[in-house]
Amino acid sequence: MFRPNDNFNLLPESYLFSEVAKRIREFRADHPDADIIRMDIGDVSLPLPECIIKAMHKAVDDQASQATFHGYGPEQGYSFLRDSIAEWDYNKRGIAHITADDIFISDGAKSDIGNIGDLFGKNIRVAVTDPVYPVYVDSNVIDGRAGILSDGRWSNILYLECTAENGFRPLLPADGICEVIYLCFPNNPTGTTSTKDELRKWVEYALRNEALIIYDSAYEAYITSDNVPRSIFEIEGAEHCAIEVRSFSKTAGFTGMRCGYTVVPRTLKYRFSDGKTASLHDMWNRRQCTKFNGASYIVQRGAAALYTPEGREAIAHNVGLYMKNAHTLREALLAKGYIVAGGVDSPYVWFKTPGCKTSWQLFEQLLHDAHITSTPGAGFGKAGEGYLRFTGFNSEENTIEAVKRITNC
Amino acid sequence: MFRPNDNFNLLPESYLFSEVAKRIREFRADHPDADIIRMDIGDVSLPLPECIIKAMHKAVDDQASQATFHGYGPEQGYSFLRDSIAEWDYNKRGIAHITADDIFISDGAKSDIGNIGDLFGKNIRVAVTDPVYPVYVDSNVIDGRAGILSDGRWSNILYLECTAENGFRPLLPADGICEVIYLCFPNNPTGTTSTKDELRKWVEYALRNEALIIYDSAYEAYITSDNVPRSIFEIEGAEHCAIEVRSFSKTAGFTGMRCGYTVVPRTLKYRFSDGKTASLHDMWNRRQCTKFNGASYIVQRGAAALYTPEGREAIAHNVGLYMKNAHTLREALLAKGYIVAGGVDSPYVWFKTPGCKTSWQLFEQLLHDAHITSTPGAGFGKAGEGYLRFTGFNSEENTIEAVKRITNC
Repeated sequence: MFRPNDNFNLLPESYLFSEVAKRIREFRADHPDADIIRMDIGDVSLPLPECIIKAMHKAVDDQASQATFHGYGPEQGYSFLRDSIAEWDYNKRGIAHITADDIFISDGAKSDIGNIGDLFGKNIRVAVTDPVYPVYVDSNVIDGRAGILSDGRWSNILYLECTAENGFRPLLPADGICEVIYLCFPNNPTGTTSTKDELRKWVEYALRNEALIIYDSAYEAYITSDNVPRSIFEIEGAEHCAIEVRSFSKTAGFTGMRCGYTVVPRTLKYRFSDGKTASLHDMWNRRQCTKFNGASYIVQRGAAALYTPEGREAIAHNVGLYMKNAHTLREALLAKGYIVAGGVDSPYVWFKTPGCKTSWQLFEQLLHDAHITSTPGAGFGKAGEGYLRFTGFNSEENTIEAVKRITNC
Repeated sequence: MFRPNDNFNLLPESYLFSEVAKRIREFRADHPDADIIRMDIGDVSLPLPECIIKAMHKAVDDQASQATFHGYGPEQGYSFLRDSIAEWDYNKRGIAHITADDIFISDGAKSDIGNIGDLFGKNIRVAVTDPVYPVYVDSNVIDGRAGILSDGRWSNILYLECTAENGFRPLLPADGICEVIYLCFPNNPTGTTSTKDELRKWVEYALRNEALIIYDSAYEAYITSDNVPRSIFEIEGAEHCAIEVRSFSKTAGFTGMRCGYTVVPRTLKYRFSDGKTASLHDMWNRRQCTKFNGASYIVQRGAAALYTPEGREAIAHNVGLYMKNAHTLREALLAKGYIVAGGVDSPYVWFKTPGCKTSWQLFEQLLHDAHITSTPGAGFGKAGEGYLRFTGFNSEENTIEAVKRITNC
């Protein structure tokens, strides 16, 4: 008799972003004339830059003719894209030791973050910040690594709280207490970043404990501060203890296109139970060759165009617009005396609900009274209760209007 | 201390198709002037039909303008594609009970087949045919469900041999002996199919044993025989025991585009260990919402164009050309007195090596002496030893030339 994976029986049915979308959909159905401004989901709103459109048209045309037709591509991605990533995102930024061979192109960061657990052994204890991007937790629940849910927390997951009280900065766990650490900087949802000195402590922790860091830097394009690293591989030794996951979604408006990449350095070595050396690079390669067939040729061609002079300029322009919105939000909320994080080096603004309102209470109030959507902080974890996340991904005009409505509500 | 997944320590390092590609690459490097004809990998060679190219150009243009820009799409896929699939691949073929809601769009069949194991419980015994598409086995090894490898076989996998002796038809296993059965018809690699009566026996087996069938019908477009079902859902009761995985790769030349779909009927119910009802549909939805962000908008638009009158005609034309090649190969090999399967209702031709040559011996001989590539049957499993797989995906001209060289070699 077939028995399904019991871990799904443990998992709460709803996924945060689906629940938010459902409530907005229901509100819209009841109030078809409401002028809703969406400040919730981290989805981009600007169209793709012209050079990317052009590159994708050309790639579509390639598929129309036998001489230029592309069938199965390499599971790891095309060199034309991997080479550009290595050059622009690493080598030219002073990270010489990451090369194209370390890079795997994917259909997006969510897939890689969700699937990376295929590489983890049994009895691995995972540490996450709280609040946290739900995929880190839920994927570990599905894999049976989370233990039992009680009072909003999984018994076998180590939660590193990030609240106003500690400046939204996770404290280092005690030595030997966890084997995998998920870090996300600039952080989703709090919008906070880590300095080089702070990040170095995490790398030292991982090296000292032979732990593994899964470093999500999907929002690195939003960093402008000098002392904030854009890659964990700026820290010496990280190539021996970290995997870096990135996405073109927020960098380049690729949420609908589906492309990202993951760096699994060939220097990343651990040991199987029998003492044999395990190369996580080789394991990820085997995993991807077995369960993935590469990202779409057309999309990879589009992504490669981001690294042309026109592409880089267009991206910087769009990121600048989103950042301006986040900054507007941040400043307006600060001016009203609220507790706010993010909005600098990050498109997210993390906002402490005034009074004793819960996240979902304020979410509902803003939706009903101000027609503003947000993401309830409680959906990101227990320590997110009493916070809301806003994003800078709407238009400037809408952001200004949203600020008015939020501050008047 | 981080310990990686020990199952990777068990898995042979190389993936069949990578090994074949590597050997061809090495031969080509040593013999740059050799006129190699590739009859190995199941990759298409014809460019995409005009109506698909047009649809994708339009979709690219959609991304260039704010009003038509598409960000994150539904994890399950867009309705414009799911509706067309339900209508054309199911409802119009007399399968009324499969609707758009049962269908999940993916970035390809390999991803879904590889990831479907996320839904399986512990101590599940999997049955596969032998020879078999390696992903069924390797993904279960990674998930820790395969046991120990000994003499080319995994101790906890049930192998259903398909050889010339039984007409390449897997026998039903004994009742109670396995909980998941992977079936692929038209079969990769043997090219054999199943009649409706034969398939009914598998559905009855699964229902009687509360087992689950993973039905891979990636090659259904190649079926022309009347008594050969194109979907397992043509069999009554399959909606209570089967998941069907499909791809646009071989149907429509989408190997480089990355799009497929999986049908997980809402009627598919099992029980968790505690007796609670488990809907595999809801579980797969939760899995996809957690670890996947939908297929590319542009690619989904391209796939939807397949269901227009022009699309259907163009596909049928291309499939017809590939089938003609497969038929040419089949007939030529049969005429020489060889044992051959496939080449009818399938683009694959499965060929018993003459004499006592092993698969890899004949692979090397054909590569070196005739400059013909093939896929060694032994790579598909122990019962594939002594066979080779050829495909009909090359051009007519090359196929005719290949037949000459193979039959003279």
